[in-house]
Amino acid sequence: MITVSLDAMGGDEGPAVVIPGAAKALERYPDVRFIIYGIESQCLPVLERFPKLQAASRFEACEIAVRMDDKPSQALRKGRWRSSMWKAIEAVKSGEADVCVSAGNTGALMAMSKFCLRTMANIERPAIAAIWPTLKGESIVLDVGATVGADAQQLIDFSVMGAAMARALFGVKRPTVGLLNIGVEEIKGQEEVKEAGRLLREAKFLDLDYHGFVEGDDLGKGIVDVVVTEGFAGNIALKTAEGTARQIASYLKSAMSRTWRAKIGYMFARDAFQRLKEKMDPRRGNGGVFLGLNGIVIKSHGGTDVEGFAAAVEVGLDMARNDLRKKIEADLNLYHARRAPALARAEAAI
Amino acid sequence: MITVSLDAMGGDEGPAVVIPGAAKALERYPDVRFIIYGIESQCLPVLERFPKLQAASRFEACEIAVRMDDKPSQALRKGRWRSSMWKAIEAVKSGEADVCVSAGNTGALMAMSKFCLRTMANIERPAIAAIWPTLKGESIVLDVGATVGADAQQLIDFSVMGAAMARALFGVKRPTVGLLNIGVEEIKGQEEVKEAGRLLREAKFLDLDYHGFVEGDDLGKGIVDVVVTEGFAGNIALKTAEGTARQIASYLKSAMSRTWRAKIGYMFARDAFQRLKEKMDPRRGNGGVFLGLNGIVIKSHGGTDVEGFAAAVEVGLDMARNDLRKKIEADLNLYHARRAPALARAEAAI
Repeated sequence: MITVSLDAMGGDEGPAVVIPGAAKALERYPDVRFIIYGIESQCLPVLERFPKLQAASRFEACEIAVRMDDKPSQALRKGRWRSSMWKAIEAVKSGEADVCVSAGNTGALMAMSKFCLRTMANIERPAIAAIWPTLKGESIVLDVGATVGADAQQLIDFSVMGAAMARALFGVKRPTVGLLNIGVEEIKGQEEVKEAGRLLREAKFLDLDYHGFVEGDDLGKGIVDVVVTEGFAGNIALKTAEGTARQIASYLKSAMSRTWRAKIGYMFARDAFQRLKEKMDPRRGNGGVFLGLNGIVIKSHGGTDVEGFAAAVEVGLDMARNDLRKKIEADLNLYHARRAPALARAEAAI
Repeated sequence: MITVSLDAMGGDEGPAVVIPGAAKALERYPDVRFIIYGIESQCLPVLERFPKLQAASRFEACEIAVRMDDKPSQALRKGRWRSSMWKAIEAVKSGEADVCVSAGNTGALMAMSKFCLRTMANIERPAIAAIWPTLKGESIVLDVGATVGADAQQLIDFSVMGAAMARALFGVKRPTVGLLNIGVEEIKGQEEVKEAGRLLREAKFLDLDYHGFVEGDDLGKGIVDVVVTEGFAGNIALKTAEGTARQIASYLKSAMSRTWRAKIGYMFARDAFQRLKEKMDPRRGNGGVFLGLNGIVIKSHGGTDVEGFAAAVEVGLDMARNDLRKKIEADLNLYHARRAPALARAEAAI
C-alpha cells in the first residue's frame, strides 16, 4: 500500500484543487492512502465533500502556508518545521509517506526538500525531471530548472537518475540516453557536454544505452528515453515547448472560427479535435520529479486543475511503486564504485 | 538599387532551389540585382530556365562548393578565396553586393564570414538572429547558435544589435528588449544575465526599452520585440519550438484522417487548415541574420525549398534597404562612447 503526503495549500487554488485532485486519483487507484497537510479552516470544508477520500486519508492541521510568491529563503524562514509544505516533505523523511506531492512554488519546494531530505550520497545537486510527450510516447527530460549549469560529472549523475526513472516509468531494461547539445559544427557545444559524452560512452557497465547528442528538435520525436541537460537550457526548452503548443492552439482556434465552412468542419471533426486537445494537454505530463534527494517529491504545476493534480499524484504513485529512490541509489553506488578504481588507475598512470 | 550575392551551391539542393528561389524574390521585387556564385555546369542549365533572373543577374563561376557536412575548418582550408560561399561573402566586403544569402552549412558560413568580413569595432562576437513568429506578429531572437555562452557585455551588444534590427524590420522607434531567463526564484538565473539586466536598466540613452526577464513560454506570445540570450540556450529554444510545431502538425494530421467524420470535417475546414499551415510554416521566418560583422550575411535553412529561399532573400533585402550594418555601428559607437566615461567615473570613485 502506498501513502502519499499532500501539501494541500500549494498551487494557485490550494485545497480547492489539491483535495478534489487527490479524490480523483483515489477513484482510479483505490488502494492509495493520503496524509493531507493544510490549514484546517480551508481544508476541512472541501474534504467533507469527498467522503471516500476522507476515509482513505488522515488530515494534519498546520498554521502556515507557503505562498506562491514567497522567495525560497522567506519560505524556509517562516515555513520550516511548521508549514504544510514542510510537513508533507517531512512525512517522506520519517517514512510515514512514500512520496510527497505539492503544487507550491518550485523554488520553495526545492529549498525545503533539500534542507529536509538532503541529497543522496554521491550526488552534489538534485535535478527536476519532466515527462515530455513525444511522437513515440513519452521521454524524460532533466534537469528542467533545479540548478543553473552542470559539470560533466553532474550530467552523468543526471543520466543515471533519468535512466532509473525511465526503467520505473516505462519498464524498459536499458533506457537510451541522449545529451542535449547544439549542432553547429564549429563550436560543437559546451565542453562539459562533450566530456560527459566521452565518459558515458566508456561506462558500458551502466544499465543504459548512450545514444550521443540530441538537438532541440529531437525532443518531440522521442528518439531517446532520457534527455539530459543542465537546468538553464532544460527549463528554457520545456517552457518554449509549452509556449509553442499554446501558440498553435490559439492559431487553430482562430482558424476554426473564422468562416462558416470552418465552423461546420469543426463540428464534424469535433472528436478529432478532442483527441488532439488531449494529446497537446499540458496536464498529461504534469509533475516534475525531484531526483537525487533521499525521498521522492513531485512538483505539480501551480496553475493546474483537478485533472492535472490527479495526474501529478499518479506520477508519484508510479515512482513509489517502483521504489525509484532505492533504484537510483543502487545505480549511483554501482557507478561510483566502478568509477573510483578506474580513476585511481588513471591517476596512478600519470 | 540593392544587389544580393548568392551562394548557389549552398543547401541540400544547391542551385535547384537557390536559383528558382531568387527568381521568385525577383518577381516580387523587380528592382533587385543578383550576383550568383556557383559551379558553372550545375548552375547555368537552371539559370537558363529563368530568363528574367538571368537578365537581372551576373553569374560568376567557381571551382569549389562547400559541402553541407564539411567542418568549418575543412571548409576554410579548401574553400577560402575560391568557393562559391567565400566569393558570395567577399562580394559584400568589396561593396559589390549589399547583402549575401547562403543556405550552406551554418558553421562554415559563420567561420568564413568572420574570416572575410571581421567583427565590427567594439564587438567581440557575432550573433545569429532568428525571426520568431508570435501571436502578435514577429520577434527577433538572438543569439540562436553563433557561439556558446556570453558575458554581460556581450548580451548588451546583442541587445543593441537586435534592437537595430527590430527598428529596420518592424519600423518601431524604440523596440522593447527582454533577456531570456528561467523563473525559478531560488536560483534566479545566470549571473551574466542578471548583470546584463542591471546594465540595460541604467543605459536609458539607448534607443530601446528594456522590459526585464522573459521566460521560454513568453517567446511565442510576442511580449517583446527582441529576446536576447546566449547561443546555447537560444539554439535549443529555436529548435525545440520548430520540433514542437512539427510534432503538433503530425498529431493534427493523424487526428484528421482517423474517422470519416474527421475527414468530412477536414474537407469543410480545408481553407482554415491552409491558413493554419501557413501560420505554422517554418519557411516564413526563414533566414538567420548574422549580426556584428562588417557586412550582412543571411543564412537560409539548408533544407528549405524555393519559397523558403525566396523568404530568406527578402529578409536580406529588408536588412539592406534599411542599411542595418551602419545603424548597428552607430548604435554601438553611441553605447561605447557613453559607457567609457561612465566606467572611468566609476573607477575614479573607487
